[in-house]
Amino acid sequence: MSRIDELTRQTGEWLRGEGPMSEVVISSRIRLARNLKGYPFLSRADQSQQRKLYRELSECITASPIGKDIFIADFEELSELDRQVLVERHLISRQHAHGEGARGVAVSGSERQALMVNEEDHLRIQVLRSGLRLEALWEEIRDIDLSLEKQIEYAYDQRYGYLTACPTNVGTGLRVSVMLHLPALKLVKEIDRVFRAAHDMKLAVRGIYGEGTDAVGDFYQVSNQVTLGRTEEEIIDEFGKTIIPKMVEYELKVREAMARERPYQLDDKIWRAYGILKNARAMSSEEALFLLSHIRMGVAMGRFKHVDVQTINELLLQTQPAHLQKIHQEKLSGEQRSIKRAKLLRARLEKHQPRDN
Amino acid sequence: MSRIDELTRQTGEWLRGEGPMSEVVISSRIRLARNLKGYPFLSRADQSQQRKLYRELSECITASPIGKDIFIADFEELSELDRQVLVERHLISRQHAHGEGARGVAVSGSERQALMVNEEDHLRIQVLRSGLRLEALWEEIRDIDLSLEKQIEYAYDQRYGYLTACPTNVGTGLRVSVMLHLPALKLVKEIDRVFRAAHDMKLAVRGIYGEGTDAVGDFYQVSNQVTLGRTEEEIIDEFGKTIIPKMVEYELKVREAMARERPYQLDDKIWRAYGILKNARAMSSEEALFLLSHIRMGVAMGRFKHVDVQTINELLLQTQPAHLQKIHQEKLSGEQRSIKRAKLLRARLEKHQPRDN
Repeated sequence: MSRIDELTRQTGEWLRGEGPMSEVVISSRIRLARNLKGYPFLSRADQSQQRKLYRELSECITASPIGKDIFIADFEELSELDRQVLVERHLISRQHAHGEGARGVAVSGSERQALMVNEEDHLRIQVLRSGLRLEALWEEIRDIDLSLEKQIEYAYDQRYGYLTACPTNVGTGLRVSVMLHLPALKLVKEIDRVFRAAHDMKLAVRGIYGEGTDAVGDFYQVSNQVTLGRTEEEIIDEFGKTIIPKMVEYELKVREAMARERPYQLDDKIWRAYGILKNARAMSSEEALFLLSHIRMGVAMGRFKHVDVQTINELLLQTQPAHLQKIHQEKLSGEQRSIKRAKLLRARLEKHQPRDN
Repeated sequence: MSRIDELTRQTGEWLRGEGPMSEVVISSRIRLARNLKGYPFLSRADQSQQRKLYRELSECITASPIGKDIFIADFEELSELDRQVLVERHLISRQHAHGEGARGVAVSGSERQALMVNEEDHLRIQVLRSGLRLEALWEEIRDIDLSLEKQIEYAYDQRYGYLTACPTNVGTGLRVSVMLHLPALKLVKEIDRVFRAAHDMKLAVRGIYGEGTDAVGDFYQVSNQVTLGRTEEEIIDEFGKTIIPKMVEYELKVREAMARERPYQLDDKIWRAYGILKNARAMSSEEALFLLSHIRMGVAMGRFKHVDVQTINELLLQTQPAHLQKIHQEKLSGEQRSIKRAKLLRARLEKHQPRDN
């Protein structure tokens, strides 16, 4: 079995549903964009330079302290389906999966660390965990960053900071990103207000699969857009202590109000989602996310006990197109996936046979 | 317990799901519009004339051969809720329920016969049964009509035939009406073609609750509009041997094609309906009809065996607003009904716990 096959059978740490504020915060992520001194940015690098970069960075990662626990996936040797699995697991970006030339990703066993080589920048170090744990993540990523810097020299400018392919990343090269589950704000149509506030604070709000994707199933990624002129600690502090806790509080308040003022409507949403997931014979991945989202809310609120968060989180991943094909070990058409997805959901939810109340 | 309370606990014969072509034909109905000679039409009758009419017709019905098995509901003594129950059971029209003055209905125990007194006409004799059984119904209603005519004289004109309040009923005073269940034609969007054909044949197509109501849950009432210039036998013959069998054949063909060409889509519709009915915590009567309709199709096609037609038919009635309130013996707001309706559906479907396949 390949390492990618093994991945599809486990749940990354970031999807465990644990950690601070995990009723609303699915996961936190920090990434640093880094480039090597003495090489052109990738947009200007030729194939041999790109290959040399790939080799140097792979070796450097392997030799670093995190190297023991890491496996490196070389994209030129990986099938499209395997790369898609990595996208669905949030270990690489879509762009990286569809890129060209020597490139890859180094992934730790727990999937808490993923270092993309030759994505937009030469190196993108990422750490991710479930719940809101930005400070711990910051310590973790700083250690990785420093250990790598002992072996290689980053492109760095005294005035601007770290130099990056895209000007929006220049400076710290830092992006902090938190995935939130905001079903109640969506249900009461307050979500646009959150978006406007985020926009005013120069934050980006994206769907579950990053740039250019819609928010499906009420999962939203909130991240900083500006990295220049502020320290890493300032950005992380604001995110972890002000911005995200406020959004979480807002979502929780609306959930409480719904539970108090219209409990039947709320339970109706949750139970219908369950009824459809447990009985449908065909289902898109978008609908699965959407319905699982409602159940997740019910579980988080203590109103629904027939499925555990762990199962929901696993299903969020396993119902994605590439994972589904990996599980069935064959290439499937959209219609076939839709049928297999519904079957998988029924089988997984079958164990949980609730008594009516 | 009042006679109306008793009614709500039984299923009228017309909802048994039996008889010819019952996969598609819910029920057949024939009604005759009659007026008494020597009285003005109701639109011109004063209160005392209306009362006299009511008394004379009630006595005449009681004295006729069907009188033994019949109970007469006097609307001036009946609550609005009880009258609504009669509407939901298709024993009286909405107009009759909301009318004024001395009026009522005579209903046989099996609910196969219902004679409205002082609706639009002095007397409207109706017979109804499940399945397509127009010839038997015609024999039945002719016997009732003749037995009444022995006691009273109808307003009749040698040239025009039976005289009625509305010119569209003049002549035979006959309306033949068949309730069809056409979910497949709806799903493949062929239903408009059926409507156009019906329109060309001067037929009316209405929803499950008669004039001015939408077709909810894919149930359609098809009836003749012209009663003048043709004999009763001609109208009934055309309906029972040509028009309805053709529509039934069309619906069945589409069902077969769906089962052959996209079985998963079809099963998905059926199972989702089941999943929602079995889990929702709030539901409108329209949605209940709609979902029960899909399950009924699944049962009729032999694809779904976890609920029997009898249960579906009972639920079609019991989820209606007035029935629901009768069952709970209290007046309920729309929201309360919605919650109780969902609860009733869950409880009734709970017995049927399917194994997954």
